[in-house]
Amino acid sequence: MRIRLFHARLISFADGNTELKENMQIGIEDGKILFVCGDEEKKSDAYAWDVERDCEGNLILPGFKNCHTHSAMTFLRSKADDLPLHEWLNDTVFPAEAKLTAKDIHTFTKLAILEYLQSGITGIFEMYLTPESIAKACRETGMRITMTGGVNNFSQSVKQLEQWIKEFNAPGDLVKFVPGFHAEYTCSKGLLEEISALANQYKMPVYAHISETAKEVKECKERYGMTPVAFLDSIGMFANGGGGYHMVHLEEDDYEIIRQRDLYAITNPGSNCKLASGIAPVTKLLAEGIPVAIGTDGPASNNALDFFREMYLTSVLAKIRDEDAAALPAMEVLKMACHTGAHAMCIPESDSIDAGKNADLILLDLSQPNMQPMHNIGKNIVYSGSKNNVIFTMINGRILYDKGEFSIGVTKEEIYAEAEKILKRIFD
Amino acid sequence: MRIRLFHARLISFADGNTELKENMQIGIEDGKILFVCGDEEKKSDAYAWDVERDCEGNLILPGFKNCHTHSAMTFLRSKADDLPLHEWLNDTVFPAEAKLTAKDIHTFTKLAILEYLQSGITGIFEMYLTPESIAKACRETGMRITMTGGVNNFSQSVKQLEQWIKEFNAPGDLVKFVPGFHAEYTCSKGLLEEISALANQYKMPVYAHISETAKEVKECKERYGMTPVAFLDSIGMFANGGGGYHMVHLEEDDYEIIRQRDLYAITNPGSNCKLASGIAPVTKLLAEGIPVAIGTDGPASNNALDFFREMYLTSVLAKIRDEDAAALPAMEVLKMACHTGAHAMCIPESDSIDAGKNADLILLDLSQPNMQPMHNIGKNIVYSGSKNNVIFTMINGRILYDKGEFSIGVTKEEIYAEAEKILKRIFD
Repeated sequence: MRIRLFHARLISFADGNTELKENMQIGIEDGKILFVCGDEEKKSDAYAWDVERDCEGNLILPGFKNCHTHSAMTFLRSKADDLPLHEWLNDTVFPAEAKLTAKDIHTFTKLAILEYLQSGITGIFEMYLTPESIAKACRETGMRITMTGGVNNFSQSVKQLEQWIKEFNAPGDLVKFVPGFHAEYTCSKGLLEEISALANQYKMPVYAHISETAKEVKECKERYGMTPVAFLDSIGMFANGGGGYHMVHLEEDDYEIIRQRDLYAITNPGSNCKLASGIAPVTKLLAEGIPVAIGTDGPASNNALDFFREMYLTSVLAKIRDEDAAALPAMEVLKMACHTGAHAMCIPESDSIDAGKNADLILLDLSQPNMQPMHNIGKNIVYSGSKNNVIFTMINGRILYDKGEFSIGVTKEEIYAEAEKILKRIFD
Repeated sequence: MRIRLFHARLISFADGNTELKENMQIGIEDGKILFVCGDEEKKSDAYAWDVERDCEGNLILPGFKNCHTHSAMTFLRSKADDLPLHEWLNDTVFPAEAKLTAKDIHTFTKLAILEYLQSGITGIFEMYLTPESIAKACRETGMRITMTGGVNNFSQSVKQLEQWIKEFNAPGDLVKFVPGFHAEYTCSKGLLEEISALANQYKMPVYAHISETAKEVKECKERYGMTPVAFLDSIGMFANGGGGYHMVHLEEDDYEIIRQRDLYAITNPGSNCKLASGIAPVTKLLAEGIPVAIGTDGPASNNALDFFREMYLTSVLAKIRDEDAAALPAMEVLKMACHTGAHAMCIPESDSIDAGKNADLILLDLSQPNMQPMHNIGKNIVYSGSKNNVIFTMINGRILYDKGEFSIGVTKEEIYAEAEKILKRIFD
């Protein structure tokens, strides 16, 4: 399958470059980018194209990388809100999750995928139950995913982590798996040491919820005399890198460890606001040389899976936290979303629009009123953008969402009907 | 013109009621609501309908009231960002505004109206230059507006305020005008006293930016030994009520004055974040019995005119400020947007969907993935809703936006072309 996109504006983020180019064309073959060049160049003449699409001067970007989510928690959206994190987890989330089957998770992951595609998200970094059924949902629909384990004292095991590491990660597959665990506060020290040993055996990075709430940090210090970052590092967890979701409540010494271990800080501003967890120190992380990526977190705590909202929040909450309107300019946030996120979730081949990279990209409608006038496209997107600017979302060279219609092998109505049946069983 | 909407879900907010009803129909004649009743009732048989529309089980709400904006500042969107409020105003906004003509403001107001309609906004509370050309833009497109004066030491006058009070405010018109001024810090004491005298002469409420930044409050106290709220009250400004835009930095004694004078607090969370002004004490205002409405502020400081974002921010910033995930539940915010806002902007006849009220209403698409599942519609809208849920926006019985298309007497492309010409003149 060969697709040519032409008459496009483009921010490619190739080698991190944020320059806006006009009148560009992109050649795509079998899910990979063949070339990127000006409309007037003749590179395209060498190929026979299955599809040629006029982008009408609209903007192509690498798709957004949603670096932290629990997709199937769509089943709990608007079911339990307005509760603090620990109460929400223990009284509502865990009991309801106990009733979920692998097939349920397959359905509710697909429900989330609809929303990801509408929002221009081309890759998700997932932590949830039954990775096999999540992988199936992603392969069936065409969504790119990196999964991590959610091991804790009550579910999943280190043996399973090892199985999943071997089962997934085939070259060229849409699905990857990296070791991970839920959080320090839901895992015994022995369990964490086993996970650390596994990661070191396979030389793989490790991911977990880290320092999300003040309570978590306080209790970890009571238990081990160290912050979660310092404690996890002390047992060798991060010898091969990895990352922490949330990282809201960091202490001064944490930054040095995070930088030395090449960890990614994955910020989740929507969830942190809604659960009143706090505002992450994003500008300080960046100033310390730590790469920051962005995630929506799951739809039970956000509740939307809307990357425009998440980018906006990342920027403006930094301004509020720092009491500085100049903090975290828009283009820096857009780069986190399109480029840095790919590295955080271990898919560097999707970090930009350049020859040889994965064709994971989106077309944004600049003819909507919220993109006018066009003094600055990056600011327009981060400060004014919305899902209704997404014309199409392409993953691995396939357009899965186009002008409101999904091409994912199932209709949205079929997904809703299946979801409703499951919810009746769980909640009635 | 008679329109019947049927097979609708409805939250009418009649008498402030937030109950969700299903299978409802609404009869509309010449811009007013004739009746609201169940689909199975026979009230509709008595009329001949020009249009009957199946709402397919989707949700009708009173439209959102955007209670603070400077619409024509679309001309500055993404032109000057990432600057603190006072620097932004003095170095960028004021010099560029000096070049604006009444005709320019007419064009850029229309650009904003496109975005309002896409976002389900059916009424705007405007403060800007050249009210005549703003009123013209609203009458031509069909937008409902309440304007207030932006008098200050450098532009507009008390004489003009009086003219505008007389010129606008015809019964049944889309356009209203109430006295107002820019802010304490841009007006001399003498000027403020004249405005107060005028408002008392006409027995009208007064509106202004009040206590937006800590700097403003500090300097007012240095000047007058009182907070802006106390000082303005001391010169009789609020004898007939009114309201304050922003109200971020209130002191303990301010609340009593605000309540006693029946003032509305109009919160602008997007703008307050982006300019790093702070987070308004919304839950405290409500606990003190003060009604709170919501506004986007202008597109130069927000930068979007997106009421879904503004509702979401109103709720989650309250949770962050109070460190309480239970703060400001979703339905309370939806009521501010649909109902309270109408009172804040002096259009109580648009506060709900009930016989005799203005037909200012929106239809929201519940079949989008972000509205699924439907555990709680109010939470879905406030926490997950977006502009792509707006099917249509009706003002005064006319559908001005319907499934992506505008019916406002001008195309969006014509507005963009005109805007571009003006920007060349101003900035090139």
